[in-house]
Amino acid sequence: MFLAAARRASPILLSLAVKTSTTAAFCSPRLANARTNTAAGATRTAYAACSISRNISLLSRPLSSMSASGASEGATAGAGSRRFVVAACQILCGSDKLANIATAESAVRDAAAAGAQVVVLPECWNGPYDTASFPVYAEPVPDPQGDETAADMPSAEQSPSAAMLCRAAAENKVWLVGGSVPEAGKDGGVYNTCIVVGPSGRIVAKHRKVHLFDIDVPGGITFKESDTLSPGDSITTVETPFGTIGVGICYDMRFPELSMAMRAAGSVLLCFPGAFNMTTGPAHWELLQRARALDNQCFVVTASPARNPDSKYQAWGHSSIVDPWGTVVATTEHEEAMLVAEVDVGRVAEVRTSIPVSLQKRPDLYRLELP
Amino acid sequence: MFLAAARRASPILLSLAVKTSTTAAFCSPRLANARTNTAAGATRTAYAACSISRNISLLSRPLSSMSASGASEGATAGAGSRRFVVAACQILCGSDKLANIATAESAVRDAAAAGAQVVVLPECWNGPYDTASFPVYAEPVPDPQGDETAADMPSAEQSPSAAMLCRAAAENKVWLVGGSVPEAGKDGGVYNTCIVVGPSGRIVAKHRKVHLFDIDVPGGITFKESDTLSPGDSITTVETPFGTIGVGICYDMRFPELSMAMRAAGSVLLCFPGAFNMTTGPAHWELLQRARALDNQCFVVTASPARNPDSKYQAWGHSSIVDPWGTVVATTEHEEAMLVAEVDVGRVAEVRTSIPVSLQKRPDLYRLELP
Repeated sequence: MFLAAARRASPILLSLAVKTSTTAAFCSPRLANARTNTAAGATRTAYAACSISRNISLLSRPLSSMSASGASEGATAGAGSRRFVVAACQILCGSDKLANIATAESAVRDAAAAGAQVVVLPECWNGPYDTASFPVYAEPVPDPQGDETAADMPSAEQSPSAAMLCRAAAENKVWLVGGSVPEAGKDGGVYNTCIVVGPSGRIVAKHRKVHLFDIDVPGGITFKESDTLSPGDSITTVETPFGTIGVGICYDMRFPELSMAMRAAGSVLLCFPGAFNMTTGPAHWELLQRARALDNQCFVVTASPARNPDSKYQAWGHSSIVDPWGTVVATTEHEEAMLVAEVDVGRVAEVRTSIPVSLQKRPDLYRLELP
Repeated sequence: MFLAAARRASPILLSLAVKTSTTAAFCSPRLANARTNTAAGATRTAYAACSISRNISLLSRPLSSMSASGASEGATAGAGSRRFVVAACQILCGSDKLANIATAESAVRDAAAAGAQVVVLPECWNGPYDTASFPVYAEPVPDPQGDETAADMPSAEQSPSAAMLCRAAAENKVWLVGGSVPEAGKDGGVYNTCIVVGPSGRIVAKHRKVHLFDIDVPGGITFKESDTLSPGDSITTVETPFGTIGVGICYDMRFPELSMAMRAAGSVLLCFPGAFNMTTGPAHWELLQRARALDNQCFVVTASPARNPDSKYQAWGHSSIVDPWGTVVATTEHEEAMLVAEVDVGRVAEVRTSIPVSLQKRPDLYRLELP
């Protein structure tokens, strides 16, 4: 039902579609809050991006579904497919956990309706980003299930956020990088956890934020996740038919080694649900994404919560999609928005061939060891 | 004599001086080709930058020499000094080696007259940036001298570029990060070498470019340094009274591990003489500098040759100075220019304390090994 309503709204909300052009193209913030950009070197990817002013409006469809010009393979998932559509959902979350779950579920549905095959939700979308809230909003999260039976699916009563992610991924047949929610670990610890669910509805990976956000910028922001959170202890990559996807959370992006490790594991796309703030957001958010993309010659997708004026923690927003050349191909402001872009995995190979840094490293002088 | 003439010219050429302000400030490109910027978080550093329209014009003096407001320590080198003035010289080089040497020597003199205590020259300033030219312009470069006698100084006949660097550093009492020149190695190889000279006139370090610039960007640029150059085999840092300075050359900047290693060796400033081109320059030059600065929480200084319309290789220019917060504090366009900035080493400690990434790394998950 949401979808039907949304489809009606889409024609006037579509912001921009850019295809195989070397001319930088921006969508005016006054027309829409998202913009797309193809710069020299990013010519083989087609993008569409848009923004929403209210929840649950379908904003755009990927270019591949709007054009007959050879982009049809991008709309089809499957082994060996070298194009896929990714969506970053910048949703507005508040303090009502069930309402947040409904918002996120709708966003996944809208993203899938827009053609997305990989959907990325924001960090900490099921409740406030606040150390005191983390334990309150936490829930158990089953370990990745592999071949286990359906009995291992998360319970909707005990784990409503995780259960929704599994349901939404299955119903919409998407790979869902489920942002993050506070996880009540069996060991008593609370983790900032990204649940990744495959189109079957099974949890295929669980990334617990490895680097906790403990910073103190005088005159800026002070935050100490470690007051109530425990850190994860593993590097997370997920095999998909589109290629390997690496998953980190927010502050994880500041540690180049983590992304390098995900790249070493074969990643072509790095996803970072994140919620930068009004101090480090303007200064570092885009820079870090572009740096991780360029250094590792991967696509990078970030999804932030929309800024909630009622929240103690003001999120920077600006979810983005960056290509392996370091070009921001789609971004947005701080309001609710959905970015949809077609990712041409072939572009990864092109960049890696053009500037073959991975073959030119000097293990005789330095080496990243992964114990 | 040059200096006297230059001093007369300086009042009208001074572009901007920004001090302890949180307001971003730009110098109009129409007024001068350099701009300075202090953003939030960069408030404790005072900057002055300027450009030159002809060689050997003194363009600016650092703020510390123009103001009595507590910046006097910045004008004085010495053990324990936490402020120093750095200059990046974007000089115009052609095919006349002796003329290039004279140009570079004048630039060092001008930088010192502007108050600089650390001076950075561009990559490949003694001849064309061209694989065929490297062997032609190459000269022997003595190894760092330590306590050797003056008899180990480079000969002006055999090594005119190196001899000039030693002379200029001594005469002007500066730490000279001497850009790079092609070095004729004793082993028969030709290296892209940065000679670092202390104020005594002795060579204190020699960095041979570790990562050779071999790239092939379709429709963009193809270059293969390895056609005539050999790679270096060491990571270079220099101890100075202002702190440790790391030295890389151009393409070396694309390898995060190298900068991380220089940071691990204690660097507070990373210098990259470089000559990006018209393809990768606009796309990556600033991004890489800011990424290396932010990830390692170091100042970064780059010096490019000015763009020479007569040259086969068109340099991007845009020499820059970036602070440890990742903010570009001074930059310029592609013409001849000199950037002068006061570096407050205390800012390094501030940023590292605010966002303590170096203490938050996860050696249980990844580790940079330096064999």
